Amino acid sequence: MATNDFVLGIDIGGTNTKVGLVDKNAKIHARFDLPTASEKPASDLFERIFKKLDEHCKQYELTPHILGVGIGAPNGNYFTGLIEKPPNLKWNRVNLVALAQEHLNVPAALTNDANAAALGEMLFGVAKGMKNFIEITLGTGLGSGIIVNGQLVYGHDGYAGEMGHVIVEKDGRLCGCGRRGCLETYVSATGLKRTVFELLASENSSSLLHDIPFNDLTSKMVYDAALKGDPIALKSFDFTGQILGRALADAVAYLSPQAIVLFGGLAAAGDFIFIPTKKYMEDNLLPIYRNKVKIIPSGLPESDAAILGAAALIWNELD
Amino acid sequence: MATNDFVLGIDIGGTNTKVGLVDKNAKIHARFDLPTASEKPASDLFERIFKKLDEHCKQYELTPHILGVGIGAPNGNYFTGLIEKPPNLKWNRVNLVALAQEHLNVPAALTNDANAAALGEMLFGVAKGMKNFIEITLGTGLGSGIIVNGQLVYGHDGYAGEMGHVIVEKDGRLCGCGRRGCLETYVSATGLKRTVFELLASENSSSLLHDIPFNDLTSKMVYDAALKGDPIALKSFDFTGQILGRALADAVAYLSPQAIVLFGGLAAAGDFIFIPTKKYMEDNLLPIYRNKVKIIPSGLPESDAAILGAAALIWNELD
Repeated sequence: MATNDFVLGIDIGGTNTKVGLVDKNAKIHARFDLPTASEKPASDLFERIFKKLDEHCKQYELTPHILGVGIGAPNGNYFTGLIEKPPNLKWNRVNLVALAQEHLNVPAALTNDANAAALGEMLFGVAKGMKNFIEITLGTGLGSGIIVNGQLVYGHDGYAGEMGHVIVEKDGRLCGCGRRGCLETYVSATGLKRTVFELLASENSSSLLHDIPFNDLTSKMVYDAALKGDPIALKSFDFTGQILGRALADAVAYLSPQAIVLFGGLAAAGDFIFIPTKKYMEDNLLPIYRNKVKIIPSGLPESDAAILGAAALIWNELD
Repeated sequence: MATNDFVLGIDIGGTNTKVGLVDKNAKIHARFDLPTASEKPASDLFERIFKKLDEHCKQYELTPHILGVGIGAPNGNYFTGLIEKPPNLKWNRVNLVALAQEHLNVPAALTNDANAAALGEMLFGVAKGMKNFIEITLGTGLGSGIIVNGQLVYGHDGYAGEMGHVIVEKDGRLCGCGRRGCLETYVSATGLKRTVFELLASENSSSLLHDIPFNDLTSKMVYDAALKGDPIALKSFDFTGQILGRALADAVAYLSPQAIVLFGGLAAAGDFIFIPTKKYMEDNLLPIYRNKVKIIPSGLPESDAAILGAAALIWNELD
């Protein structure tokens, strides 16, 4: 590859879209953000992206050779290039791959953000060289990308890897998907908040968290309270790790991965989440899998991961 | 391939070993069984297999061109060729691939029986042409083989696909693996018996099954009772389908397969098991997966499946 070779990585979020030119060494050039503005058609976003890219390239005197466009977006389908009824976006059904190719006649590919993160981890992060691992993204919800035999698992319809929606508690917490007991209702920033409030209701320990309304509470506040030894905060992380560890023991029975990589806000809680998760996973593993599967934090910088992941979609196929 | 080309399929069971020469069209030639006799070394079994194969070939005037040897055995590991501490066999740790190659200098490969059944289904059964499906073998326990992107999922260590040991009920029934609540303690011939006895204890319905001791009860008897409208038998199948359907909904969230194929004794109960399994799976599926995933009976004849599956291990790689 020439040093001038880049992949354009585009990560479309509910509010902002992140764009950058990613070289083979995971360095991001001509990086910028812009409002997604999904009340307008998706074509408008792509016009703004390519206009701003031109401006940036002129400004930085770049004449990039763009090998392809990788796009990460909610509900993005690799097989069809479509996003369909994405949560947090007002578009209904749009072919984003076709839209990108109207501007640039190069290979383009789309997938969801968790799948993109898994590919980014394999090419640029802690999963370099791994052929079998699971990437778990912990944000408002829980996303996952599964790598088997060095390939992303898309399944028959492009929608595989929704580990946030395995049911871990029969008749458990109500999920945004309409069902009850989904993993992400327990293991996510929102799940942690729900656990804190459940424990504030069921326990009598005095806690720093007694004074914070639900809408103001963040994972960071629970983390800070845990650092100070707050019993509710500590118990909330332990419970979150228990639910995640049990779910991971099942995931291992399906896939026997080399590692499970945790990415995103909750993963930043470090030992508070990694120690109980590992303990409860090992407690629940079938003996043949014990002490084999690593649980490790992502090696992708949080601010760059989405663009790197989107670009990895193309770099992975060029390799 | 020449019409004289065969793969030697060997299925090693706790009591008997089945052997046959399988051609590209799934026809089995020179087929025979012999006692596994695992109190003697595994090398003794392989000597007897190849001696008997020679005799059979002479008897039927076959001069086969054997392209490879495929072996299915409990705990068989594809990556190492080893079986390690197999249940029901007295061998501790043996390299079966090396033993086969002492007799025949051709490619040889080993995996467990459920994985072999999945490959057999893909090459010779109802999953022909499918790239993403799950094979579930229902016998004394529950085995599974997972196909993703047209390849068997072995995982990092060769032991992926132990769906019988996902935990479906916290603190549930004690499993042979030492843990509690594993899927196979509910969904298997043994699981069905346990359910019958649980219902005989908890319900008051009069039942044909009241007169049968635990050790005498078979799935076939429960099936026969269900055909006569026995309420305990009917409820037992419904409960089994409920547990299986819920587990399959989770499996779909991981893998989004085109189909789930049920093989073995319990699958022979037909509608009694397929109807509730499908119903409870759909009830528990994330909306994007609904009405997409078929649950179908195996297309492999039960008596031939093990040999066909073992042979598919080699045919699959020659294709």
